[in-house]
Order: sequence, then C-alpha cells, then structure tokens
Amino acid sequence: MKTCIRLEEIMQLELRERAHFINSVGGFKSIGLIGTSDRQGQTNLAIFSSIVHIGANPPLISFIMRPDSVERHTLSNILSTGYYTINHVNESIFQKAHQTSARYPQEVSEFEVTGLTREYKNDFFAPFVQESAVQLGVQFKERIDLTINQTIMIIGQIEQVHFPKDCLHPDGYLDIEKAGTISCSGLDSYHKTQRIDRLPYAKL
Amino acid sequence: MKTCIRLEEIMQLELRERAHFINSVGGFKSIGLIGTSDRQGQTNLAIFSSIVHIGANPPLISFIMRPDSVERHTLSNILSTGYYTINHVNESIFQKAHQTSARYPQEVSEFEVTGLTREYKNDFFAPFVQESAVQLGVQFKERIDLTINQTIMIIGQIEQVHFPKDCLHPDGYLDIEKAGTISCSGLDSYHKTQRIDRLPYAKL
Repeated sequence: MKTCIRLEEIMQLELRERAHFINSVGGFKSIGLIGTSDRQGQTNLAIFSSIVHIGANPPLISFIMRPDSVERHTLSNILSTGYYTINHVNESIFQKAHQTSARYPQEVSEFEVTGLTREYKNDFFAPFVQESAVQLGVQFKERIDLTINQTIMIIGQIEQVHFPKDCLHPDGYLDIEKAGTISCSGLDSYHKTQRIDRLPYAKL
Repeated sequence: MKTCIRLEEIMQLELRERAHFINSVGGFKSIGLIGTSDRQGQTNLAIFSSIVHIGANPPLISFIMRPDSVERHTLSNILSTGYYTINHVNESIFQKAHQTSARYPQEVSEFEVTGLTREYKNDFFAPFVQESAVQLGVQFKERIDLTINQTIMIIGQIEQVHFPKDCLHPDGYLDIEKAGTISCSGLDSYHKTQRIDRLPYAKL
C-alpha cells in the first residue's frame, strides 16, 4: 500500500531521519573513493555518492560536496593541486570505503587507517586505490557554488581510465558489474547488481 | 589484467563508442522517468540517468540534460509550468522507460506510445507514472547552464513523495530495493540490486 509524505512533514523529520529519507528517494547512486594528495604528499581518501557523468565530448564527470564536512580536505587538495582520482568500490572494500567518511583530522591519511593501498602510476599526481578495479585519473576543471544550499559541484575531465581488459565490450560499453563495482542507496546501504538486460538504441 | 586508456585515445574513439565508454566509467546510475505537461495538458515522459540528491535541508534533487536532444520538451515544460515528477524505474517497466528516449515529435506523448499510465493526484500539476513504486513531485528551483559543455543542470525541491508504506524503515531509510527500483550502467544496461549490508555511521 502506498503512502505520501509532503514537504511540510519532511521538514519536520528529525535531521538524521530526513537525511536518510531524502538520500534514499533519488534512486541508486554511483559511489567512488576520491583520492587526493596535498603538495607535500599527505594523502586523503573520501567516499562520495554523488558522482555523475556530465558529457562524453570531452569526457567530464562531476560530484557534489559540502564545504563544512570531512570532505574539506578533498576540496582543498583538488583546488591546490588540480588532480584527483575516482576509484570504484567493490564488495571486498566497501566497509573500508565507508569508514573513510569518519571525521579524521587532516594529518591522518584515510589510506593508512583503513588499510586501502595507495597506488601511484602513469605519472599521475594523485593516488589511486589499488584494490579498486576501475580507476579514473581526473583533472579539475571547474567549481560551481550552488548558492541554493551552499554545496559545491566539482567538474573534472577524465585524463586516464584503468580497468580490467576483459570488461570492455567491442561497442565501448564497460561492464562494471563484471568488474565488481557496487552501488549505494541512502546514506549507508550497499548493493551488488545483477544485469537484467542491455537494450538496443531506442527508435521510433 | 588491467589496461589503461588515456584522454587522447578516448577522444579518438568513434562518437557512439566514446559515449558508451564514458557513460560506463562513472559507476551505477540513478534512473528516473521525468513526467511533465505543458499548459495545454500535452504530457511528456523521458528517462534520465543523471539524477542526484544535492541536499536534504531543504530536500533538493538535480539532473543534467542536453538542450539539443529529445529532452528539450521536458525542459520547456519544466520552465513554463514549474513542476515535474521523478518516477523510479522497476523491472516490469524498464523496456517502456528505455523507449521514451526515442525522438518522438512534440505532439506525441511518450505515455501513449509506451503504454505507461499517467496518474494525477494530490493536486500536483505534473503527471506521475502509475506503474512506478516510488514517485516524487518536484518544484523547479534553479537552472544552471554548464558552460563547459553546454549541458543544463536542473535543481528542484521535493514537494511530495509517494512510496510503499512497508519500505520505510524507522530511521528514515527508504528501502528502494524492496520497492523494486533498478539501476543503470552505461547508456543501455539495466540492473537489479541485491543488498550486501547497511553499515553504521562511521566513527573514529
């Protein structure tokens, strides 16, 4: 049986309850571990669930962050160095990935406390997560301040993609389910996937 | 075995191949059917895979669209009427949902050609999709033109949420997997989910 909740009631929910609810209603989310480093080599790793493709030509990807949160080290590193990595989360690392959302002080690297492995390669400035099957090296392009609620949208250009060779289809589709990538709903629910079908390009 | 593809090679991919690839690398995506109507009652329905929660206080949700595509009827209806619905996609309607991406002329309603059912309720201006278990009524708040690639970000405030009563947890989490909501990867791959776990709030 369906029920309905309206804005007035949503706004009366307790803060954490409202966060759980509103984070759930948008559907399943992309999650990724964003790896950064400051100029002195102090690394940072944080999980984000608002990663969105915004175009393929050039290849651009965005995510949303709150300035007042644990995410601020990620932001300052991106703005000062211009580079970051986005690393897919899989079933074997999702607990460690989730733990990066705790409020560690700046001098603590989430790589060290979670045991996830820093991987530097291809002369890319920012650290990848070795345990991640699909890894993106991204160059910062634009910051958009969303004045409506003081969040920040970060747009970057994909400079390199590391992925398991056998997951790439001839038509360009990358089988991220085969790569073990998982999804998230709400603030804390992690889900693996099972393909229903791929459909042909929709025609009239 | 992992391989790496760099920006120069990505840009040399054939257009459709690049679209498949770049749409895949961001992870699993939220999909939703966006329902709109013009002032004369001509309805429109289109699938979007870039729906992102951007804040809970107030409850805001966004999506990205390209102005030059089939999505333009959705855009003009949202801008002229101020209201739209976002309807979750499930396994029983994903083929019809996918079909809404075909380039129908404006006088054709995707509700009619796909057989999805218009549902008007709660005095909300825009039509919901009856077959959808989770339905959001959204008020348009802001349009942000992303000059970097001429896409458009639409931000709206969630005015009402319709959902199956037994999917709501006491802590506010809405179990969208139980509601049958599915996810998407790339341009055309649809996936159901299987919960691995919910994790407690991460502490130091």
